[in-house]
Amino acid sequence: MQMIRVAIAGHGNLGRGVEAAIAKNPDMQLVGIYSRRAPEQIQPLHAGTAIHAMETLVGHTDRIDVLILCGGSKEDLPEQGPQLAALFNTVDSFDTHARIPEYFAAVNAPALAHRKTALISAGWDPGMFSVNRVMGEALLPDGATYTFWGRGLSQGHSDAIRRVPGVAAGVQYTLPVPQAVDKVRSGARPSLATREKHTRECFVVLNAGADAQAVRQAIVTMPHYFDEYDTAVNFITAEELRQNHSAMPHGGFVIRSGNTTDAHTQVIEYGLKLESNPEFTASVLVAYARAVHRLQQMGQFGAKTVFDVPPGLLSAKSAEQLRAEQL
Amino acid sequence: MQMIRVAIAGHGNLGRGVEAAIAKNPDMQLVGIYSRRAPEQIQPLHAGTAIHAMETLVGHTDRIDVLILCGGSKEDLPEQGPQLAALFNTVDSFDTHARIPEYFAAVNAPALAHRKTALISAGWDPGMFSVNRVMGEALLPDGATYTFWGRGLSQGHSDAIRRVPGVAAGVQYTLPVPQAVDKVRSGARPSLATREKHTRECFVVLNAGADAQAVRQAIVTMPHYFDEYDTAVNFITAEELRQNHSAMPHGGFVIRSGNTTDAHTQVIEYGLKLESNPEFTASVLVAYARAVHRLQQMGQFGAKTVFDVPPGLLSAKSAEQLRAEQL
Repeated sequence: MQMIRVAIAGHGNLGRGVEAAIAKNPDMQLVGIYSRRAPEQIQPLHAGTAIHAMETLVGHTDRIDVLILCGGSKEDLPEQGPQLAALFNTVDSFDTHARIPEYFAAVNAPALAHRKTALISAGWDPGMFSVNRVMGEALLPDGATYTFWGRGLSQGHSDAIRRVPGVAAGVQYTLPVPQAVDKVRSGARPSLATREKHTRECFVVLNAGADAQAVRQAIVTMPHYFDEYDTAVNFITAEELRQNHSAMPHGGFVIRSGNTTDAHTQVIEYGLKLESNPEFTASVLVAYARAVHRLQQMGQFGAKTVFDVPPGLLSAKSAEQLRAEQL
Repeated sequence: MQMIRVAIAGHGNLGRGVEAAIAKNPDMQLVGIYSRRAPEQIQPLHAGTAIHAMETLVGHTDRIDVLILCGGSKEDLPEQGPQLAALFNTVDSFDTHARIPEYFAAVNAPALAHRKTALISAGWDPGMFSVNRVMGEALLPDGATYTFWGRGLSQGHSDAIRRVPGVAAGVQYTLPVPQAVDKVRSGARPSLATREKHTRECFVVLNAGADAQAVRQAIVTMPHYFDEYDTAVNFITAEELRQNHSAMPHGGFVIRSGNTTDAHTQVIEYGLKLESNPEFTASVLVAYARAVHRLQQMGQFGAKTVFDVPPGLLSAKSAEQLRAEQL
């Protein structure tokens, strides 16, 4: 078997997840971790893994079949994505939904010019949920699509509560409203306001002397983040936070219901129950890295999304084997 | 908008479902129904639809972008599939799992030779469930996949009970065992025997004078169909059968659970709840007809399966629109 040589750019939670995921795929080989931090600060899962400075990537184009970009969507990817797509086949998890068209264009031009393939915005949302939104709508054009998230830890909302004066630490969970989920699953196509779909639950550690009531008020009225939701704020100790809220679970559902005729309603549901959000996202990136390698070998250059990738290219198995075993 | 000109070969339950599905897709136009029955025996949904004899297809190659084959997998498709793939782009629902590789080869050769694209084995199983088996395994390589069917009416098993001496009419439902589904959903990877995964439920109308006990015994011990399952046999009247068991509901789940690290289990679930099995299958065929038309225009000739089709090609929307709205 010809191994696919994969490298990781960025070694936070997502990069560590990619490291673990590569180890689960026998047709892939981790050729190195590239980081802006000093190499001695990087603890790879396997002691033998090569650690390199990010600047050395430009000299390593011959060693790497696919580079997985594990930086953030706010600061890292807008810069790294276009630069590195000129040098490598890449996969990333760019997840600022509103800026995807712009990011796609910025990555597409250098990738096309250098005959590379760059898959953007992989993961589970954007990613697997997006695939299921598109397929659901295509299969049941007379219907409605609903996405529910949770129960899961939201990074952006956790960051927001940590910025509130008086807050020492904290996390935020997003929860789907069970009654709304049940109604959607029944095949009804309800109109649901933001408040009717999800609730938010915060666990907050206060600074010494902080006013709990003022902190609660600041959180529940925060524009964009909390004001359109019913939010519960729980105050806990730093020790409780560490013990009970260090995991990063997430998940949710995409539900499409629709009518094929007036007489018959059909419901499609795709759900994820994730004990580790970054590890699952990483697993998706690694499967798409396999597809990217193949697409580039087939001459399909430029920026791609999950909508452009045939499911069979994600699998280590041959098309013949998939037809015989899994169709 | 350039309309996709679709025709239907075969007008049973599936063909009628395709007719209804085409009407739900504004970019498609039904150009005709082809049948071996006398035209006056065909009742199209819309009075204006052209009805043609099956033999006339050969002269209509210029009128049809994609021909949807709605015949059965046992008698019709093994003959029609290869013949018609030489003349048309085709989509079918060939579902004899064990013979798919052979059927693929038989369709691939004429399609390639005549620069046509032929998508075989679409529907929900094989079809959407197959896509989810392959994607689940690719995303969580250290894991296990489970397919549960039902609650749903099984055509093959209903036919089998109707062949039992003393049976005037009847239907069979397949049901997943809730405890097994719960165990799989929990992320455990249980080993489940056939009997532990599904039960079977029959509703039988007896012939006058038939021995109910003998019929029940003949059903529950029938090799391949029932002997490996716990089967309930209920005797009802012809009127009850007509009133309560004329619908064709079906569905089920594909569940993949796996570990991304020793510490974290992840669960992916794809589920269908179908009030009409043939209408949903038909909707899948129609969405794949759109993809087949595009694949052929892109020069991707030969036999294809759902594993070869990028999700975006199923949608009537452009790639730009999908990226902006649904990623």
